Amino acid sequence: MNERIKVGVIGASGYSGEELVRLLLGHPNVELSIVTSRQYAGKTIAQVLPKLANYPEARTLRFSDSDATLVAQRASIVFLTLPHGVASEFAVPLLEAGCKVIDLSADFRLRDAAVYKEFYTHDHPAPHLLKTAVYGMPEIYRNKIKGAALIASPGCYPTSILLPTIQLLREGLIHGESIIADSMSGVSGAGRKAELDYLFAECNESVRPYGIPKHRHLSEIEQELGIAAKKAIRIQFTPHLIPVNRGILTTLYLAPSPHFSTESELSNFHERVGAAYQKAYANEPFVRLLEGAALPDTKNVVGTNAIEIAWRVDPRTGRLIVMSAIDNLVKGASGQAVQSMNIVGGFAETAGLV
Amino acid sequence: MNERIKVGVIGASGYSGEELVRLLLGHPNVELSIVTSRQYAGKTIAQVLPKLANYPEARTLRFSDSDATLVAQRASIVFLTLPHGVASEFAVPLLEAGCKVIDLSADFRLRDAAVYKEFYTHDHPAPHLLKTAVYGMPEIYRNKIKGAALIASPGCYPTSILLPTIQLLREGLIHGESIIADSMSGVSGAGRKAELDYLFAECNESVRPYGIPKHRHLSEIEQELGIAAKKAIRIQFTPHLIPVNRGILTTLYLAPSPHFSTESELSNFHERVGAAYQKAYANEPFVRLLEGAALPDTKNVVGTNAIEIAWRVDPRTGRLIVMSAIDNLVKGASGQAVQSMNIVGGFAETAGLV
Amino acid sequence: MNERIKVGVIGASGYSGEELVRLLLGHPNVELSIVTSRQYAGKTIAQVLPKLANYPEARTLRFSDSDATLVAQRASIVFLTLPHGVASEFAVPLLEAGCKVIDLSADFRLRDAAVYKEFYTHDHPAPHLLKTAVYGMPEIYRNKIKGAALIASPGCYPTSILLPTIQLLREGLIHGESIIADSMSGVSGAGRKAELDYLFAECNESVRPYGIPKHRHLSEIEQELGIAAKKAIRIQFTPHLIPVNRGILTTLYLAPSPHFSTESELSNFHERVGAAYQKAYANEPFVRLLEGAALPDTKNVVGTNAIEIAWRVDPRTGRLIVMSAIDNLVKGASGQAVQSMNIVGGFAETAGLV
Amino acid sequence: MNERIKVGVIGASGYSGEELVRLLLGHPNVELSIVTSRQYAGKTIAQVLPKLANYPEARTLRFSDSDATLVAQRASIVFLTLPHGVASEFAVPLLEAGCKVIDLSADFRLRDAAVYKEFYTHDHPAPHLLKTAVYGMPEIYRNKIKGAALIASPGCYPTSILLPTIQLLREGLIHGESIIADSMSGVSGAGRKAELDYLFAECNESVRPYGIPKHRHLSEIEQELGIAAKKAIRIQFTPHLIPVNRGILTTLYLAPSPHFSTESELSNFHERVGAAYQKAYANEPFVRLLEGAALPDTKNVVGTNAIEIAWRVDPRTGRLIVMSAIDNLVKGASGQAVQSMNIVGGFAETAGLV
Repeated sequence: MNERIKVGVIGASGYSGEELVRLLLGHPNVELSIVTSRQYAGKTIAQVLPKLANYPEARTLRFSDSDATLVAQRASIVFLTLPHGVASEFAVPLLEAGCKVIDLSADFRLRDAAVYKEFYTHDHPAPHLLKTAVYGMPEIYRNKIKGAALIASPGCYPTSILLPTIQLLREGLIHGESIIADSMSGVSGAGRKAELDYLFAECNESVRPYGIPKHRHLSEIEQELGIAAKKAIRIQFTPHLIPVNRGILTTLYLAPSPHFSTESELSNFHERVGAAYQKAYANEPFVRLLEGAALPDTKNVVGTNAIEIAWRVDPRTGRLIVMSAIDNLVKGASGQAVQSMNIVGGFAETAGLV
Repeated sequence: MNERIKVGVIGASGYSGEELVRLLLGHPNVELSIVTSRQYAGKTIAQVLPKLANYPEARTLRFSDSDATLVAQRASIVFLTLPHGVASEFAVPLLEAGCKVIDLSADFRLRDAAVYKEFYTHDHPAPHLLKTAVYGMPEIYRNKIKGAALIASPGCYPTSILLPTIQLLREGLIHGESIIADSMSGVSGAGRKAELDYLFAECNESVRPYGIPKHRHLSEIEQELGIAAKKAIRIQFTPHLIPVNRGILTTLYLAPSPHFSTESELSNFHERVGAAYQKAYANEPFVRLLEGAALPDTKNVVGTNAIEIAWRVDPRTGRLIVMSAIDNLVKGASGQAVQSMNIVGGFAETAGLV
Repeated sequence: MNERIKVGVIGASGYSGEELVRLLLGHPNVELSIVTSRQYAGKTIAQVLPKLANYPEARTLRFSDSDATLVAQRASIVFLTLPHGVASEFAVPLLEAGCKVIDLSADFRLRDAAVYKEFYTHDHPAPHLLKTAVYGMPEIYRNKIKGAALIASPGCYPTSILLPTIQLLREGLIHGESIIADSMSGVSGAGRKAELDYLFAECNESVRPYGIPKHRHLSEIEQELGIAAKKAIRIQFTPHLIPVNRGILTTLYLAPSPHFSTESELSNFHERVGAAYQKAYANEPFVRLLEGAALPDTKNVVGTNAIEIAWRVDPRTGRLIVMSAIDNLVKGASGQAVQSMNIVGGFAETAGLV
Repeated sequence: MNERIKVGVIGASGYSGEELVRLLLGHPNVELSIVTSRQYAGKTIAQVLPKLANYPEARTLRFSDSDATLVAQRASIVFLTLPHGVASEFAVPLLEAGCKVIDLSADFRLRDAAVYKEFYTHDHPAPHLLKTAVYGMPEIYRNKIKGAALIASPGCYPTSILLPTIQLLREGLIHGESIIADSMSGVSGAGRKAELDYLFAECNESVRPYGIPKHRHLSEIEQELGIAAKKAIRIQFTPHLIPVNRGILTTLYLAPSPHFSTESELSNFHERVGAAYQKAYANEPFVRLLEGAALPDTKNVVGTNAIEIAWRVDPRTGRLIVMSAIDNLVKGASGQAVQSMNIVGGFAETAGLV
């Protein structure tokens, strides 16, 4: 086997970090050479993340302190699984030291520092980097990712919403003002935090909306939709918490563009949407366009980097309903980050991913 | 204690039937004098429905065959928890024998036999009864229920959608064409049927849409919304299956009526909605209008006849978001049927219900 | 209706407290006149415990500060749902003020302060009360409960283990040294505490043993078994955490007494066990001795005060297997406490309970 | 890459079959060349098992009819994931055609056709093969597996019980008559069968014992324990169904051998057990001997071929408590079968497994 590229993970003890470490330990082209955590420094991966104990390296590699200089010495590609605001503190020195950085936080997803401040309620810690950062959604920005030094890996809800809508906006098939996204997420999306709201007995046998009407993820969703539509877009978005560990199911309510107003034009709108998706995604390894009567189901994507997409035109209302399913920790976080790494590293884009 | 009215249940072995029997066994004003089931005739309630075994009557009352004549001899109010189509076969002779009938199927919910045929794909078995049947939603039709001989108890999704929207249409607050209802239901809503789709390992760790775009419940939802709006209404409705036993969470996307178009008018739209709900529901024992930051959560209504309702105006989009939560087996089925019975029987409307 | 007795609950914001308040709000013979909580003083029950918001009193009664003097003025029977150690601080002044006290903590379950210290690792705060306290298990101590001023309501695991074994020891049917109790509990048993171990994503899709080999509940289990056997008893007990909100399933492995050693004696051992249970529990309203092929299932007891018990003799090994199921929050905590209250108050023992 | 060995799966539409196909599609040394199913012949793997749709071969390989001749032409190693009784019908012709057969049913696990008849209630369909079949538990029978033509892959419960106990019996550390195994299994263990008992709403919020006292798996458990102990062994075994998709947690209650009767001998019994496990399993890639305070948890093994084992000596009772956790579909079924295939095929034993 060829020499493997050395990669590191800063802040690996949360759910996304655990999934990222799992993917990297199983990856054929990289060596996980350093993982850091303030809390767990000195312990092996297997001790902190016992689900991964069967990987031989998990029993020998120990968490280091979160020190950017140390990480830069040991790894050439570095993932940040840190809270927003904190991620920037590491990104700056790592980039200066010549590392490629793939950040899973929100710090570099927005192009405009003012929007960042509006949604994250503090000044952006490193606004000079916003111009160079690339939004790490390979199906949309593959070419830019190739040469990027700083990749801002997308949020979980944005991934489930953007992949089904961007192409429809690009092709002018839907009305930009019409987008309503109704999402349901598993509880791992809330992170590994000791809060009453996420106790088993508070989440099990429960479903509830939260964070409405202005969830932080709206900022990156609307930015990317605006780019696709070439005009400002505002959408409606409601997240819900459901009792599963993993998975996001998004149902989108969309209005066909005004020029599909006649009945005859509307009658082949379903095929037009399908053709648009085929054009964009037929060769994408992780996008599954469902055929026939099949509808997305999170259980079919959990543990994988896939997104399932299905669509229906309701002849009674004229609306287009698009549904998507992803694993919030894989395609919605760590899997997508590894997909970007594969592009950056020049590996097969599906390497280490299912 | 005064003499109790005798009530019967035909077809009591499903999930709604079990919940109905539970409520009737614990009811202070009625005596459950007969329960029937073709499959379980001869067995006690406790043997068939062991969750209810602690009620003394459950250990003595045995299921009878489903025979309308027998039931009419033993009970003056009869509940039908049967599939649509079958319910009519019992309703006709029971009404002729002078019983009051509360039907939990869809057979008498629609006023128009043609709509019934469109949605249920067979001719209505007793169209002459459609004129006399009353839609058993006490908050809307309390006075008609009082004198009704035949009550069509509403469906679960319709209950979660209609109670939050009817009042807004009546007051002209929302645009009738704008209604989008996104619902999530627990698996008991699919009934006690041995089908692969509802196995534990197929539903657990899964969330999926189904039955789109033309779910049968649309027929009664649009009928009732049309009555409230005084014009035909078509809505968008997507049900989803989530891994809880019980509970429906509905999120409604609504557009304020055109006369709330200016910013200043929109600014107090939230209060206008609250005032409309207060006017309609302030004294309703089972409608909870949530205050402050509280949002509906199915775990707060499961096992009760309550509906939780909250609403938010999104200043970014101008839309009104209304969310509701019910227990699909109680307020969405058996509890609402008992509430109607309480009205018919002249009992306190909250008797036997929480 | 007759005048209701006034009752109070100190420390009502945990899961047992919530269930207790639910039972008291629905009880026909008592008035819940005061509930206290340091954290929630000033808020209504409905605000703190939204599941109970449909009880009219829940919308008016506000939490008071936890002040024994105030509680003693307002209530004649007081429940303590407090941590061990803290409960004693309230029990002493309440008893002095003439209240009846029903304590759901472990503070008064043990007769021997030294055993308390061994298992709870601090000196008993009020050892003089241990002689007068009655272990609040109605099926065993009904007569003592009648006149008691201080009732120590049993723990959840102990209830699931003691009710099936005490009678077998009393009748000399099983070997006292042989008892192995393997229990599975829902997560509400861990209390409403913000700890990582009880997060949804840590408990869902997980089953694990914990607290072995010396769980605190062993102290009261062995005390009561010793009383039944008239000699010291040590048992084996392993609790497991499973992903349900409520319910305990206990499987007991027992050896028949030595005088059942011959095959012919063993052959009717199953009936002998059944006869012993019938003798003890045939008229007990909350003990269900399962017949035929039925085995206990927590879903059949959750929300009720029932215990299901079934037993099998394994002809291959000669062992007796006894299985029980309870709701840890009802028969295992608040329901059993209300059952004791019914005895103390002179009400029907089943009043307010199913 | 070297040429891959061709493998086939007969009866691949159940949960074990799905997991097996997943492992084979991801395996570096084999090519899944044929999968069969009477029900799904003609459909692609991706259509029948959408969880696997991201493997490129799953979108092209179609299910064939279950025809032994066809399978023998296409594959040199064949897995059978069929009901007992049916598996033999395929094993015979496949072996005659020169294939290696790895059977996941119970058909070839027992050495004695009379025991098979006792537990499976029909004559063994191919008793002449029982002598040549090897029980496919690599940690115990690695050398025999190497040259075997017919491998009987162990049952899920047996795997969770045998790996922790065989070594203790071999070393004479425990009393053979003392073994009590209390197990909890996820619902996938019941198979993909449309039965009321396994509906979501019947399993969720439920835990229940079943199949006592004579579960079929006892036959292979006692056979293998008898071989280890060099005498006949009878054990006590109680399986329970818990609401998780996957995972078995077994708690074993064991008595130290009589020569550990003195207190001083018992005091280092814990270490003796640890030393025995170390001796047997220190180099086993899939056996995790837990250290310190760690206890097995199914969530740490689900999706992997690992077994977690921990043990405690209870100084109060003198008993040894051993706990194990596996994924019933991986180490308990398909993963263990692949591990055997790796040995048979001469691959790294961990190839394609985590």
